[in-house]
Amino acid sequence: MKAGEDKLVKKIVKALAPKSGPRLALSAGDDAALLTPRPGYETILTCDWFLEGSHFLPRKHPADSIGWKCLARAVSDIAAMGGQPRCFLLSLALPDRLTLREKGRGSRWLDEFLGGLRRAARRFGCVLAGGDTTQRREILINVTVVGEVLGGRAIRRSGAKAGDRIFVSGVLGEAELGLQKLRRSARIPQKSDRALRKHLYPQPRLALGQWLADRKLASSMIDLSDGLSSDLHRLCGASRVGARIEVAQIPSPQGPLTASMRFDALGLALNGGDDYELLFTVSASKAPRIPRSFEGLALTEIGEITRERRVVLIERDRTRKALLPRGWDPFREGE
Amino acid sequence: MKAGEDKLVKKIVKALAPKSGPRLALSAGDDAALLTPRPGYETILTCDWFLEGSHFLPRKHPADSIGWKCLARAVSDIAAMGGQPRCFLLSLALPDRLTLREKGRGSRWLDEFLGGLRRAARRFGCVLAGGDTTQRREILINVTVVGEVLGGRAIRRSGAKAGDRIFVSGVLGEAELGLQKLRRSARIPQKSDRALRKHLYPQPRLALGQWLADRKLASSMIDLSDGLSSDLHRLCGASRVGARIEVAQIPSPQGPLTASMRFDALGLALNGGDDYELLFTVSASKAPRIPRSFEGLALTEIGEITRERRVVLIERDRTRKALLPRGWDPFREGE
Repeated sequence: MKAGEDKLVKKIVKALAPKSGPRLALSAGDDAALLTPRPGYETILTCDWFLEGSHFLPRKHPADSIGWKCLARAVSDIAAMGGQPRCFLLSLALPDRLTLREKGRGSRWLDEFLGGLRRAARRFGCVLAGGDTTQRREILINVTVVGEVLGGRAIRRSGAKAGDRIFVSGVLGEAELGLQKLRRSARIPQKSDRALRKHLYPQPRLALGQWLADRKLASSMIDLSDGLSSDLHRLCGASRVGARIEVAQIPSPQGPLTASMRFDALGLALNGGDDYELLFTVSASKAPRIPRSFEGLALTEIGEITRERRVVLIERDRTRKALLPRGWDPFREGE
Repeated sequence: MKAGEDKLVKKIVKALAPKSGPRLALSAGDDAALLTPRPGYETILTCDWFLEGSHFLPRKHPADSIGWKCLARAVSDIAAMGGQPRCFLLSLALPDRLTLREKGRGSRWLDEFLGGLRRAARRFGCVLAGGDTTQRREILINVTVVGEVLGGRAIRRSGAKAGDRIFVSGVLGEAELGLQKLRRSARIPQKSDRALRKHLYPQPRLALGQWLADRKLASSMIDLSDGLSSDLHRLCGASRVGARIEVAQIPSPQGPLTASMRFDALGLALNGGDDYELLFTVSASKAPRIPRSFEGLALTEIGEITRERRVVLIERDRTRKALLPRGWDPFREGE
């Protein structure tokens, strides 16, 4: 049985209703959502595509991971500004078979998707404010997240200065490793695998980003969505600087990799996407205030910002080579 | 020549740069956009799909109309709250052939698309704040618009009361008539045709919406995106009321319609989508303050809100029948 758009919207709104009272003046269901800004705060706005085939594979990715991740990756942009998410808009295009049939597989997919999204929304403190739904052959998702940050405290990409130290959170390349495991397995593998979990259920580094912003520790910041090599180039471009990073310092995945892997451990760390760790710079005078770990998350100094506008990689034997942006680029893939 | 995502983003940002100084703390190019809310105002948030095949036909719709309309329809939701648009996020997925080739047709498509979008952005006073781009076989667009309204002045769908008069702006069904003309023509027809212009370049009724909100004249409001029959049901549902409307009063397209039309003039007015006129209710005591036209736009009283929760159509011969929601529904089309 097909049902109309209004019924689907009701189902989504019900599934994502916050447990406690609404924090919005007007939630999903009107022409638009109304949000009362907190005095003294700036509003942060970001949006992200999450498309079948491009960003996830419906036969490989569990529906609850698709729900979790479509919100987590947009929330990660809020983390990268040092902000706090407040609400989100969900644009969802779904094939008929995945919408409102009463007992079939389709309804289960939608329920699981909304379950993963609900868990993410609660974890990140981000409520559904509105959205748009339509019918489509393929699953198309677009998420807009609205956050806030105390006026003047947002951390931009453009603030890095020569001499600043470069830090990253966590281990880089694990999510790409998880994706490769997922692609190679005939069915959905054990979710207990650390790399796979990182690929399926990424954790935006909200607490770290806010801590850095509150204490004015970071001069610039970006989240690692496409891979260190690409995102470091973006940060340097916005700041009109270069960087020198040390291979020996880059936190890369440990343990055995199989020969069929697309990258080695260093390649994973440099070019693997989807980690949603934070890359940030700190002036030399403030760098000693950055701990080795923050709430259990490793923070590693990997290099230094330079005046010369190139990104250079220092190998273990101290040879230098240019680091090119080889992370994920939707307009270069399949070239 | 293919180029990367960063280059496409630069092209978009350059094409849409406002003529006067930026009104945003931080515009497109960082992880997220920063917006400083005006004290005393609430933030309005809305988003809309605009997808190849579902919402436009690339062989029929000029690229500049696609650019104009993707923003206009989202801005119309801001008009329907009585608000003022401030900025927008553009999520764009494009086939390679439409991106950065230097001299080919693809580049022309993108230039025209951005030209239409730029004209709309300037007309509506709505600047590009950010977005997301990716590569895709088909053109996928999602637009988020952020607006503002003086605290407490937003006009919701849910405020209609029994006895309120029902008004609409403009002529209903013209955009659907324009679409039918477009579908039937072998090539893109004369843009001077009034119905076609309304379909290709809809005008969100911002000034009217703000005037109604400023003077607290409307008890409820919705924009007519899917057709009067569907959108009136939505307004009545949100307000927990019914409505009685008069066929003789509904402003429908004038002039000859051909026999092959999908609807007659009344059918166009009741069920045609994409008009982006405003449907609003006004208490009986305030109704005399609604003029017959506002800045050249006709305002027509078409009926009354009722306690009984049904939507009834009064024919010219005074017979009554139920008005069912027969407007555009992406989950019902092609059933």
